[in-house]
Amino acid sequence: MSRILFACASTALLLVGTNVMAKEGMFTPEQLPQIAEDLKATGLNIPPERLSDLTAFPMGAIVSLGGCSASFVSPKGLAVTNHHCARGSVQYNSTPEHNYLENGFLAKTMNEELPAAPGTRMWVTVAFSDVTEQVLGELDNDMSGRERYDAIEQKQKTLIAECEAEEGYRCSVPAFFEGLEYKLIKQMEIRDVRIAYAPADSIGKYGGDIDNWMWPRHTGDFSFYRAYVGPDGKPADFSKDNVPYQPKHMLKVSAAGLNEGDFVMAVGYPGSTNRYARLATVDYTFGWMYPTYVDLISTWIDTIEDAAPEGSEARIKYESTLAGLNNFLKNTEGQLAGAKRVGLVERREKREKSLNQWLQNAGNKPDLLDAISALDDVSAQQATKSKQNFWYNNITRSQLLAAAQTLYRNAIEQAKPDAEREPGFQERDSSRLEQSMQRIDRRYDAKVDKAVWQKFINMYREQPATAHIDAFDEALGLSGKNDDSSLDATLTSFYENTQLDEAKYRLSLLSANKEELEASNDPFIKLAVALYPTEMKIENDAKALAGRAAALQPKYMRAIIDWQKAQNSLAYPDANSTLRVTYGTVLGGKPKDGLIYEPFTRLEGILKKDTATEPFNSPAKQLRLIEDKKYGPYQLESIGSVPVNFLTDLDSTGGNSGSATLNADAELVGLLFDGTFESVNSDWDFDPKTTRTIHVDTRYMLWVMQYVDNAQNLIDEMTIVK
Amino acid sequence: MSRILFACASTALLLVGTNVMAKEGMFTPEQLPQIAEDLKATGLNIPPERLSDLTAFPMGAIVSLGGCSASFVSPKGLAVTNHHCARGSVQYNSTPEHNYLENGFLAKTMNEELPAAPGTRMWVTVAFSDVTEQVLGELDNDMSGRERYDAIEQKQKTLIAECEAEEGYRCSVPAFFEGLEYKLIKQMEIRDVRIAYAPADSIGKYGGDIDNWMWPRHTGDFSFYRAYVGPDGKPADFSKDNVPYQPKHMLKVSAAGLNEGDFVMAVGYPGSTNRYARLATVDYTFGWMYPTYVDLISTWIDTIEDAAPEGSEARIKYESTLAGLNNFLKNTEGQLAGAKRVGLVERREKREKSLNQWLQNAGNKPDLLDAISALDDVSAQQATKSKQNFWYNNITRSQLLAAAQTLYRNAIEQAKPDAEREPGFQERDSSRLEQSMQRIDRRYDAKVDKAVWQKFINMYREQPATAHIDAFDEALGLSGKNDDSSLDATLTSFYENTQLDEAKYRLSLLSANKEELEASNDPFIKLAVALYPTEMKIENDAKALAGRAAALQPKYMRAIIDWQKAQNSLAYPDANSTLRVTYGTVLGGKPKDGLIYEPFTRLEGILKKDTATEPFNSPAKQLRLIEDKKYGPYQLESIGSVPVNFLTDLDSTGGNSGSATLNADAELVGLLFDGTFESVNSDWDFDPKTTRTIHVDTRYMLWVMQYVDNAQNLIDEMTIVK
Repeated sequence: MSRILFACASTALLLVGTNVMAKEGMFTPEQLPQIAEDLKATGLNIPPERLSDLTAFPMGAIVSLGGCSASFVSPKGLAVTNHHCARGSVQYNSTPEHNYLENGFLAKTMNEELPAAPGTRMWVTVAFSDVTEQVLGELDNDMSGRERYDAIEQKQKTLIAECEAEEGYRCSVPAFFEGLEYKLIKQMEIRDVRIAYAPADSIGKYGGDIDNWMWPRHTGDFSFYRAYVGPDGKPADFSKDNVPYQPKHMLKVSAAGLNEGDFVMAVGYPGSTNRYARLATVDYTFGWMYPTYVDLISTWIDTIEDAAPEGSEARIKYESTLAGLNNFLKNTEGQLAGAKRVGLVERREKREKSLNQWLQNAGNKPDLLDAISALDDVSAQQATKSKQNFWYNNITRSQLLAAAQTLYRNAIEQAKPDAEREPGFQERDSSRLEQSMQRIDRRYDAKVDKAVWQKFINMYREQPATAHIDAFDEALGLSGKNDDSSLDATLTSFYENTQLDEAKYRLSLLSANKEELEASNDPFIKLAVALYPTEMKIENDAKALAGRAAALQPKYMRAIIDWQKAQNSLAYPDANSTLRVTYGTVLGGKPKDGLIYEPFTRLEGILKKDTATEPFNSPAKQLRLIEDKKYGPYQLESIGSVPVNFLTDLDSTGGNSGSATLNADAELVGLLFDGTFESVNSDWDFDPKTTRTIHVDTRYMLWVMQYVDNAQNLIDEMTIVK
Repeated sequence: MSRILFACASTALLLVGTNVMAKEGMFTPEQLPQIAEDLKATGLNIPPERLSDLTAFPMGAIVSLGGCSASFVSPKGLAVTNHHCARGSVQYNSTPEHNYLENGFLAKTMNEELPAAPGTRMWVTVAFSDVTEQVLGELDNDMSGRERYDAIEQKQKTLIAECEAEEGYRCSVPAFFEGLEYKLIKQMEIRDVRIAYAPADSIGKYGGDIDNWMWPRHTGDFSFYRAYVGPDGKPADFSKDNVPYQPKHMLKVSAAGLNEGDFVMAVGYPGSTNRYARLATVDYTFGWMYPTYVDLISTWIDTIEDAAPEGSEARIKYESTLAGLNNFLKNTEGQLAGAKRVGLVERREKREKSLNQWLQNAGNKPDLLDAISALDDVSAQQATKSKQNFWYNNITRSQLLAAAQTLYRNAIEQAKPDAEREPGFQERDSSRLEQSMQRIDRRYDAKVDKAVWQKFINMYREQPATAHIDAFDEALGLSGKNDDSSLDATLTSFYENTQLDEAKYRLSLLSANKEELEASNDPFIKLAVALYPTEMKIENDAKALAGRAAALQPKYMRAIIDWQKAQNSLAYPDANSTLRVTYGTVLGGKPKDGLIYEPFTRLEGILKKDTATEPFNSPAKQLRLIEDKKYGPYQLESIGSVPVNFLTDLDSTGGNSGSATLNADAELVGLLFDGTFESVNSDWDFDPKTTRTIHVDTRYMLWVMQYVDNAQNLIDEMTIVK
């Protein structure tokens, strides 16, 4: 639902008769030695095994921003990421007097750098180990689903707590291959992040929502953060006394060389894919959930736009919500179109049949068939549950109600020992909780919140009795005979009588206990209390099913891995926000019959797109430079201009935003920032014909920095390869 | 404002580094011997001089449908044109029981052919001569503008009357080169036209408004009419006794051969272009008129859609009006974007400066400079007048008011001798007038008509006093103090008290005299009478200016022709709905930086576009045939499929719809039916980089006929070249 979590993926391409098979796969760095031969054949110059050490070059230069990726490009902690990943920080620092969104921001010296938006973090991986045995070793075949779920979570919490005993680090124990493997990842958490340079929106967000997911593209989607640490070199809160962080590794920046067909790899933190989802899940998602969401999101958008007319203060507060909803809508429409195009359901059916066939053959572990069959049963139950919970989720979309529910849950969790609390409510989560309570103010307007809530409740009222939640109906006095005006009066009284619209009040309630909240007269808190048993019932059911799946999925993945191995193919785990490497070549596309994408766009394309109004309003200086053909040393001869964006057949998804795009020598040649519209379905199924990933070219970045924004101080700091 | 009057044009193309200069020009057939060398060089196989005789092969096979072009393809009067040109006739014959729009229509024998919509005519050119001397010979330099206008019109009317003395013919005296030349064109007017075959909308209108002006395209935009004449071979009204017309010439239909880069020419009746318009006109059109219309048309569309909700009977009546308005809107937006892209104003400025420079040089007729300067003055005055009349035109957009105005004008004109009547009200126009009075019923709904009228009047009321028309304000009681509800009451009483919503009544008034109409109590007729002096004032001013321009434009065109000749270039006259030839090659495009159009689309593209819902709902049978790769003999090897539509760099505009696309041997290889969105501005200025014309390939036509619709009877009638 955010531009940061976009979905896209690389693929094979049938380009005017030439059939190039793309190298699907978001590999973990440790997997790379297993495909060393292919990496070399595709064009990698450096030894493939060098890519498998997360703490060595070049992987050590790649950091996570949480939802986005970034990479160090100077010894003084300078990190480059997408403009859309750093834009929140630019917005945070903007004022009517200093409109950095409109004019861009450049610190000419480090002293001028500004703190990033609250909560901005940079995570540098420092250790990585396999903990599968610790997590799963003591599990018992007789455990119920819920017991298994809790046992795994408890192991993860214990490992995390041990790992985080050293201050300044954040640890996680993600599952790989659907729980077949678990890794402990230790990351240094840099808390003092500052914005060093961001071009104006008219460069960094050029094309805006219109061009989002689209090719041809001309977006200067890059910005620079700098990481700071305390004088002792350890993570510290923002302070004047802090010093730039000295990364162990940094990337050289290429100013030349990349051309059509060249080897490229992208290194970053893709969020989530569903390439191994079972047919039951696919059927539910594409047969019911996505189509239902398309209607729902359209209504949601209309409701916000009606309640917050263009030009109103409320609209400003909801701009990013609207952008997120529109992005989600476009993505979902693309998913549905893509699923239809590739025949997702039929393909998944076929794959499952083939796998079964292979397993049934002698020697091929037919015992796994039972596990898979049981997993299908669980997947179907999960789909049913998700459908049942659909309206509960919709009628709780008021931001104030969500805050009340979080506060009440927090009070309940705080009463437990830290290790027993629900993840998200532990000691280590306290600052995030505070930020979430604070953040509401910027994106909340009572009239809009009420309009959205009311709209959802009205849709819910039209549902059959079986879809209804008694606790909710009782609390809101919903019954057969109540009418629109009485609901309106009820909701109005909620907003008139709540204090939850005040940040101070919300924050104060983070230390309230269960009894205090249960005694509250705040209507949203009362409703949250009333809904708590329903909420718990849903959560318990989900955890029980997840626990059952946890016993079955690893067997399914084992089967997949062996099956693929038998076909000489290396299975890779679904994306899970951990560091991944994907590789391929610079390649145009053929998205539709009769239409061809060129692999590069040119400066001149900006001139042609320009309308002088947002989002096609390049700075006048930039337009003049292009008219004057002032290319400097950044021209790509084969296209007769400076390349702006380029396409590759890399495999990517949401979270990959800001990923370093590297050439055969592991030099930075671009930043991954989007996928084409035809690619979004690759989250579920790899369509080797149409999926393409979009990157901003470092030559355009350097051109903008040198000629448009005079950011020579940053260029001087980097190692530029000519 | 209709899909038939689309605008597009051919051009040069910068395709991935290759610079091919297109052959701009809509040449009159008689001009072709002058460019014989280039025609041959481009690939024409037949002697170019054969193209210059309008009554010989192949020109004799090309006919006009008025707003569309068609061509004979069998000795029995079978003529092929675009589906969108014949669709009105399909619609006219459709009933809930026989929904030919949805299912297509095929007469398996001639007996099953159905009469085309009332008013459908086919015009076959039989004679063509230069009458410049007759028209202009007696004109006098001292004539006022109005005198000159009337004198020219009188000469035209006399020539037409003489020519039409022979029954069954329709004559015209169009001006070429802005009045430098006049031609007398005599056409046999076939009045019994029948529909022989039209594929279903799901083929013929595939892609609908969404794909309109777009590439890639997959539209089977073809249909077949048959011309019938009396047993004596002369034009006759519809009768069972009529026989198929035997054309003197017919085209062979190619089933093979056309490939990328091949020579093609299109022959048809382009409607109107403005390639020689002076800067004053360009400035007015692109600086004021088009931007104003974009807003106005959007409001107009919204008003109709509000008053005629989806699914209502009123909406059905306004579907074609809405389609026309949407088409016009998209076109106008394309014009504005195109003008910006090519720098229309700057280019026209530059051209006018260069022409002046050339004229100023010794020996280059500097005397023409004065005429051009005077023409600029007239152009500026015309722009001013047009702006002044803008609101008059808007507040008279009620269909009933327009009918009343026509009826009153008719009564006045009928009192004069036929030769003195305004064109459009002469004896020869009587059946058209009747049809126009009859036709209203199908596209009229009182509620919608009133809503549109009221909206325009309300916008008019917001205009400054200078824009107001006293006669209108008085008649409607508009004054400073009146409010919305009083206007509403006034308009309501118009619709309550009129009889003009009855076709019978309107038709009866065609024979009413001036006094009878002036005595009428019908509110619309009273208003028409009240507005008549204003209407006349506007018309007189326009005619006076047109008369002044008529004295100057030929000198300007003389200058243009000589100037272009000095540059070894042959000037061609602006389109004027007369037969033209344009030629070029099959050629893809590069509409935007980063995007390439392939020259052909394939059957498989239909599979990929298909959504099973209109306008992407191919017949199931067609989809199956494509899945089975049943190409028959129609495959184009270079694209590995049957070509559906193709792009060329031909020069074309609205009215070219249905034009025969011929190969080097003058065999039919396709039908021209649209231009790309990037091409629409070529009506004003030729952009050699992006403009492309879209054709349906005869191989797709034959494939649909043979495999989808079993129209073997028609295939057998044609001469197919394999």
